[in-house]
Amino acid sequence: MEQGGKILLDLLILFVAAKIGGEIAERIKQPAVVGEVLIGIAIGSGALGIISRSAAVEVVSTIGVMILLFLVGLETDIEAIRKIGLRAIVVATLGVIVPFVLGFGLMYLRGSSNVESMFVATALVATSVGITARVLSDLGVLGRVESQIILAAAVVDDILGLLVLSMVTAVAKAGVVPAPELALTLGKGALFVIVAAILPPIILNRHEKHIDRLRHSNALLSVAIAACLGFSVLAEGFGLAAIVGAFLAGLGFANVEGHSTLKKEVSALAHVFSPLFFVAIGMMVDIRALVAPQVLTLGLAITALAIIGKVIGCGLAAWNMGPRSAMIVGVGMAPRGEVGLIVATIGLGLGAIPRDLVSAIVLMSILTTIVVPPLMPHLFSARSSEEDAEAEPGISIDY
Amino acid sequence: MEQGGKILLDLLILFVAAKIGGEIAERIKQPAVVGEVLIGIAIGSGALGIISRSAAVEVVSTIGVMILLFLVGLETDIEAIRKIGLRAIVVATLGVIVPFVLGFGLMYLRGSSNVESMFVATALVATSVGITARVLSDLGVLGRVESQIILAAAVVDDILGLLVLSMVTAVAKAGVVPAPELALTLGKGALFVIVAAILPPIILNRHEKHIDRLRHSNALLSVAIAACLGFSVLAEGFGLAAIVGAFLAGLGFANVEGHSTLKKEVSALAHVFSPLFFVAIGMMVDIRALVAPQVLTLGLAITALAIIGKVIGCGLAAWNMGPRSAMIVGVGMAPRGEVGLIVATIGLGLGAIPRDLVSAIVLMSILTTIVVPPLMPHLFSARSSEEDAEAEPGISIDY
Repeated sequence: MEQGGKILLDLLILFVAAKIGGEIAERIKQPAVVGEVLIGIAIGSGALGIISRSAAVEVVSTIGVMILLFLVGLETDIEAIRKIGLRAIVVATLGVIVPFVLGFGLMYLRGSSNVESMFVATALVATSVGITARVLSDLGVLGRVESQIILAAAVVDDILGLLVLSMVTAVAKAGVVPAPELALTLGKGALFVIVAAILPPIILNRHEKHIDRLRHSNALLSVAIAACLGFSVLAEGFGLAAIVGAFLAGLGFANVEGHSTLKKEVSALAHVFSPLFFVAIGMMVDIRALVAPQVLTLGLAITALAIIGKVIGCGLAAWNMGPRSAMIVGVGMAPRGEVGLIVATIGLGLGAIPRDLVSAIVLMSILTTIVVPPLMPHLFSARSSEEDAEAEPGISIDY
Repeated sequence: MEQGGKILLDLLILFVAAKIGGEIAERIKQPAVVGEVLIGIAIGSGALGIISRSAAVEVVSTIGVMILLFLVGLETDIEAIRKIGLRAIVVATLGVIVPFVLGFGLMYLRGSSNVESMFVATALVATSVGITARVLSDLGVLGRVESQIILAAAVVDDILGLLVLSMVTAVAKAGVVPAPELALTLGKGALFVIVAAILPPIILNRHEKHIDRLRHSNALLSVAIAACLGFSVLAEGFGLAAIVGAFLAGLGFANVEGHSTLKKEVSALAHVFSPLFFVAIGMMVDIRALVAPQVLTLGLAITALAIIGKVIGCGLAAWNMGPRSAMIVGVGMAPRGEVGLIVATIGLGLGAIPRDLVSAIVLMSILTTIVVPPLMPHLFSARSSEEDAEAEPGISIDY
């Protein structure tokens, strides 16, 4: 005597698809996330049409990406982040500027309008924190300094990306850039990140005893989940992506007592939910729109610029870590994932870009997402045999 | 650059409410589930109106109750169930007949129509497996023979309850009871339960090696979740409640290798999600409709019959276990929870019962749900000091 049959069927299809996709990818020695995105494309309404993006899909994929970013935060070595903070900001900034300039240049030369060119350029700006985090965790290299730079820079470029997006949206709407609003967006975002990175560890440290005193068993997990959701909502309130909040919340619990039990429990949650997010990303793609020749050509060109832009921009900023590490950082920042798709959706909604440009951006988002993960193991293993064969094995999110 | 702000806000409110409600209940030595239902009533659109039953609420509460029943199945001692199977069927059957007769009698004497009387009687029939399971697990008495009889009987009476509901619905619609359809409903339900209880352990036993060979880490959890969702969907296909499928799926993994790790992981999931289900149940209640005097009087009368009916019916069937155990079984079967609410909703939708009867049924559902949990610890501890002080401590679902 229960409702929710449609919900359960959607969850079943999504979950089984995710696990089959991941399993196939791993059997051919690719990161699971690639298989999950590809199977999402296959089962989405675009191709086989087995499942559409229902409420159930939206809810569980949102939970999935939040838990994933929380877990990544939980895994992060805060001391290391403190050491690399400045470098991450430089990596993020150059990684935003170079792809934007390249993207704008290509579209401008191609004869597109300013607004169209700006939207395509904006879609190239921000790295998908979710994809990046997942690939690094699948490879068990979250403890590496390159990984930590990539993750920190991906969080920073999410802020910069939002700034660019609000600027471009303002231009598309009104034709002007309101400087005070821009400053406010940037200031609010920066304020949130700083406060959210500093406060929780202090509060937790002071109230650990109170958490222990809560009656219900497993109180730490409850407080952690509440913090993850609370910071996600707060981040959105400050104009940032919710996942930035989830990541910072996880960071807050990285040194808490009972960390290892908490990590196991959050890992179980992530094991179940985060693959659903990547299947759902695949489902956003209508593969039929991508086969038109002009979409294909433009899409491939944008994809090339998306990768080259991050490799040059981020690689340059990380150059003094050595060429191999610079390459890892540059390539690691390349996946655009859901971020590119969201920019394309907003542009289409505003009537700022035509449908074939949207499809080209979608193609770029998919290709950067599925091309980068297979490259990372080679880059990391080459580095490890060359430069730090004696380094400790990376921390792995073991789910 | 993420969507889903409304989803996250709903999840945050729901989760924090659940944990605050549970914590308060435990501080005044009540089962957490009581606090969760009550806080659900408080925050639901009925009273404070902080949150409504959005898609996010539906999805996570569905996940919550599925995981809970899967975990209960995982915890069940199959040998014990085999021993008590017949008794559980007798308990369930008498526990369906007596409340139905009492409920029908009261309404008939009160001058209600046959259809109205039958709907009220039907709302009294089925025990809420979810509430019952949660209370027993909160008390750490899942290993007790009374608990196992209660759970098995609650699964059986779900089948019988569905049978009664389809019969009553048919009468309300057409004025006739189609015997072949009834036989089909019963047969399908019984077939599913038997097949689902026998097949999975055999399949798992034979394919454990294959699960080990799956590439992705933590394959057992994946297979378990897929089975939980799959059997839930199948159960609905066979006309049963989805939670019956989840319970039977859990039963299938009760003896699997790696059981203790699996249990910890599923417990973490249940810890996060199952309280959300109970808050959502509370949210179904519009408290303003319950304060009218005639609703209050009738509601209290139905509540009394609901409890007396199960205590007499189930208690009678369990009498030869001793009076204390019979009392535990009878009282333990009393919570109607969401089941009563669903019957009321269906009756209202068919135009078969007026709104004040619906409110009375709702009151009965809430009262049986929040009155029984506080009684159980006393009954169990009295029994344990009287009769089996030497018994092993019950298995607890430790989340």
